[in-house]
Amino acid sequence: MMTDSAEVARSILDDQAPTTRCRILATAERFFREIGYQKTTVSDIAKSLGMSPANVYRFFESKKAINEAVVASVIKDIEGLIAAIADVPSLSAADRVAGIVRALHHDCVERCRANPRIHEMVEAAMTESWGVCEHHVARISAVLTRVVREGVLGGEFDTKDPEVAALCVQASIIRYCNPMLVSLYPNVPGPPLDDMISFIISGLRGASR
Amino acid sequence: MMTDSAEVARSILDDQAPTTRCRILATAERFFREIGYQKTTVSDIAKSLGMSPANVYRFFESKKAINEAVVASVIKDIEGLIAAIADVPSLSAADRVAGIVRALHHDCVERCRANPRIHEMVEAAMTESWGVCEHHVARISAVLTRVVREGVLGGEFDTKDPEVAALCVQASIIRYCNPMLVSLYPNVPGPPLDDMISFIISGLRGASR
Repeated sequence: MMTDSAEVARSILDDQAPTTRCRILATAERFFREIGYQKTTVSDIAKSLGMSPANVYRFFESKKAINEAVVASVIKDIEGLIAAIADVPSLSAADRVAGIVRALHHDCVERCRANPRIHEMVEAAMTESWGVCEHHVARISAVLTRVVREGVLGGEFDTKDPEVAALCVQASIIRYCNPMLVSLYPNVPGPPLDDMISFIISGLRGASR
Repeated sequence: MMTDSAEVARSILDDQAPTTRCRILATAERFFREIGYQKTTVSDIAKSLGMSPANVYRFFESKKAINEAVVASVIKDIEGLIAAIADVPSLSAADRVAGIVRALHHDCVERCRANPRIHEMVEAAMTESWGVCEHHVARISAVLTRVVREGVLGGEFDTKDPEVAALCVQASIIRYCNPMLVSLYPNVPGPPLDDMISFIISGLRGASR
């Protein structure tokens, strides 16, 4: 690998590291969107930025680290959105669960439609259990657990263990929110999402009755 | 292709056709179990039976038709089992739904463990929507719809549309009963099956409350 030590020093020493990191990620995401993450090389990214590959490796230890960071950036918005829905004080817990499920479904379907190569990448990340996806799933669990717990405290839901109930909600929506199933089963018969949401809300209203 | 018209005539004319069909299927299943359906050729099957490939094609118009017939035979037992569970008069509708879900899960996990190559084949059949699998999923829906309808009539369940409710149950158990997810996610955190079943039964007890 060619290195350009002046260039490296410039990037590291002039407090531009966060900016350079962002530029690498933005460039990687553009390549991933256009030709797919598997065909994109670190050289492509470096060349497009006028950097050496070695300099890219100062910021990301491997191509895999770039992949994970791009996926993290792609799924950051939906995580923010569902956390915001969980926090709307005027909505019932049931409406917040419904809103979170709809947001997750819309995010997945819309990415599949508008950015198929990025969707493929998120699908691989989920299927191969990249660390970034394990955290993503855990954060969704945490948000759902919080809303379920508030629903129990408010008398809306009746479930012994909000954490387990949140996992049940997640398992119930795989067909609508898992990238692989969303791209595999677009035309397979299944209940409309609204019916599925009603079913889930009933499930939360009382496992112990 | 070599044909042996005497052999063909013997198979067709002496009323042995059903037997020959069964022998072809049994031999195909043995090959599929040992080397996988993709590596098995019609010639392998024919040779093992002392037949010509052309004679095999008298009974199955293509390799795909053999594949579908083997999958149909592999999933026949579980279909019989869930229909039998649906018919146990001493069980509540909730216990019958629970029994059906447990049976579907056990069947899928056990095949994955004991017969990985057959599991792979069923997985491909599901993923690629072979006709045989569409019928299988429809038959599971029909059995679940029947039990849910009986549960509504008996006052156990409260749901406007038993058919949609049955689809909701099926969507909820994908993680436990879909061959692809069972092999992909053996160690991914999710609710224990018993908790998932309680959640589903709650869902059936009333979407309209």
